[in-house]
Amino acid sequence: MRSTGGARSRARAAVRVQVAHLAADLVLERGYEETTVDDICAAAEISRSTFFRYFPSKDDALFGETADAGERLLEALLARPPEEGPWVAMRRALDPIIARYEANDERTRRLARLMVNTPALAAHHREKNGRWHQLLRPEIARRLGADPAEASDPRVDAVIGAARGCVEAALAAWTASDEPQNLPEILDRAMDAIR
Amino acid sequence: MRSTGGARSRARAAVRVQVAHLAADLVLERGYEETTVDDICAAAEISRSTFFRYFPSKDDALFGETADAGERLLEALLARPPEEGPWVAMRRALDPIIARYEANDERTRRLARLMVNTPALAAHHREKNGRWHQLLRPEIARRLGADPAEASDPRVDAVIGAARGCVEAALAAWTASDEPQNLPEILDRAMDAIR
Repeated sequence: MRSTGGARSRARAAVRVQVAHLAADLVLERGYEETTVDDICAAAEISRSTFFRYFPSKDDALFGETADAGERLLEALLARPPEEGPWVAMRRALDPIIARYEANDERTRRLARLMVNTPALAAHHREKNGRWHQLLRPEIARRLGADPAEASDPRVDAVIGAARGCVEAALAAWTASDEPQNLPEILDRAMDAIR
Repeated sequence: MRSTGGARSRARAAVRVQVAHLAADLVLERGYEETTVDDICAAAEISRSTFFRYFPSKDDALFGETADAGERLLEALLARPPEEGPWVAMRRALDPIIARYEANDERTRRLARLMVNTPALAAHHREKNGRWHQLLRPEIARRLGADPAEASDPRVDAVIGAARGCVEAALAAWTASDEPQNLPEILDRAMDAIR
């Protein structure tokens, strides 16, 4: 029983990746607005109801891989040496996430570029980042020696907001050039420019 | 002729301020979504066409005073000592803008709080900040010794994006408490937390 369940879940994961790749290729070929869920279903030869069993929306098919970025970031932040300052700890905690971008193929970079340059997608991404912003608050407060409940202390939101600004700048720079660049180095440059 | 034109333009400016104050009071009393342009016109005893001669939209009546923030910020940035680093120069260039917030009455602080807490308004504000982001790029690039045309250099956008994050954090902290706080000090704390 267990192995059948495992096989089924592996098969599901494989279909999910395939549909996501198809969705990305279509969007990169035709444009974000121009590609509908129906187009993706037709290309993948699946029904709409199958599509929505895998993904809540078109955006999730395109960027679902980064859906757990907040949890991963928090986990990495908690794993940093407890006495490390918040800015350095933030930079290091971003490593596993950007390694995922970096490790992926050219499709990922082209998708990231589309995201940076499509206002609707950039807004969607910013809203998602707003969620990880909240997740990180207690641990950044601890590293600052701040009280996270003290609403008149701006430091926690400043550190996280500034880091978000640096990540956006790094992604824009990474995707701007046609030649692949080293994303961790670009993020280092972005975050060092402020200190 | 000239003095008549001057008197007329002073009268126009006075009406503009009055309508803006009325709009703010209505929105603070009834809520942002709940207040229409028609409500503002009724309270101000003006026609819709008069309203739209003064303001392109409800948001402009509420936040029109900050419409030239980008130009003022650039002007203040250009006036900083040329060898001052970009982060310190950004902080000092924000002084005239936040002095305007600080100098104004309790209405301004309550409006700023509404802006921070209303997603539609926060998005509108962020879009406006996107415009000053572009305005500041050449001068921040000069202070970094960066080439503003080099798209793969993330530093210019990182400095401006991080400063925007700090301003947002400072405004949220400033408006969170019911007792008036010192906004320049809050912004200092926000921007110093990163260095």
